[in-house]
Amino acid sequence: MTENLKHLIKDHINFPVKGIIFKDILPLLQDPDIFAKVIEEMSNSPIFRNADAIISIDARGFIFGTAISFYLSKPMVVARKPGKLPGKLIQKSYDLEYGSNSLAIQEESIKPYKSFAIVDDLLATGGTVKCVAEILNDSCKEISGLSVVIELGELCGRDKFKFPVESNIVL
Amino acid sequence: MTENLKHLIKDHINFPVKGIIFKDILPLLQDPDIFAKVIEEMSNSPIFRNADAIISIDARGFIFGTAISFYLSKPMVVARKPGKLPGKLIQKSYDLEYGSNSLAIQEESIKPYKSFAIVDDLLATGGTVKCVAEILNDSCKEISGLSVVIELGELCGRDKFKFPVESNIVL
Repeated sequence: MTENLKHLIKDHINFPVKGIIFKDILPLLQDPDIFAKVIEEMSNSPIFRNADAIISIDARGFIFGTAISFYLSKPMVVARKPGKLPGKLIQKSYDLEYGSNSLAIQEESIKPYKSFAIVDDLLATGGTVKCVAEILNDSCKEISGLSVVIELGELCGRDKFKFPVESNIVL
Repeated sequence: MTENLKHLIKDHINFPVKGIIFKDILPLLQDPDIFAKVIEEMSNSPIFRNADAIISIDARGFIFGTAISFYLSKPMVVARKPGKLPGKLIQKSYDLEYGSNSLAIQEESIKPYKSFAIVDDLLATGGTVKCVAEILNDSCKEISGLSVVIELGELCGRDKFKFPVESNIVL
């Protein structure tokens, strides 16, 4: 599985900025069988069993979060970049590997749930996920864990978190 | 079904700019049963049977395109906003209901396929879809149709296209 997955992740050197090797996960979506296996593998985790809802991170996180939500029949909410979500928002800034950004969650969307499984495509330094986790914690929500497809092991993103972190492949 | 769907779409007046009534489709993701029905309804169309691959539009289109891709086991590629995709791109600008924007497709991603089903969450004036369709046509690809959840009927977006357009709900 790891080998099958590895050949579907393409390196792009100096993208989006110099010094970064971007891991392009999109070719995975062109292989429905492997994609389905990845989704099943992710879904088959206590992280999702212990969550009332999934929270997916803009925008590649939507792809994996949606498929897991559909497969497990579990509600999904989203964390998006500023200006994208209408309604009353809870917003926070975070540092990226390159630069900084903000994420927002619709206050209304998280109200019905107590615990969340966070989903993204890739874990690098963990800044984005930390931002989402802080918004959830500030709103007195629990986090059952983080599920990503790719983990950049050398960046030790998982050390930022007290909750379980699962990845399909460590690069 | 239409009534079930209607109560999950929330109007936001003057978002993202004054004069626009934004249709928020995200509450639909919090009702997995209705979401599954919407995906089944969309998937059960010749638009997808007649396509080699799905092309989903950034970012809410990813949500519906992914679920359909997963359900039908069909490859998916994406059209994204500038600066988001690595590799060699094909890019075009388009006019929005408010302002203008560009979309890009990875040249490599569309190479293996002849025909595409376009997926987005909502059809307004059709500028975004027209942009994707032009990129595909310029690359000698066929378009089997457009599938959206919400269609804003008064804006007559579908009149821009010669290919079939299907929507779950016309508002």
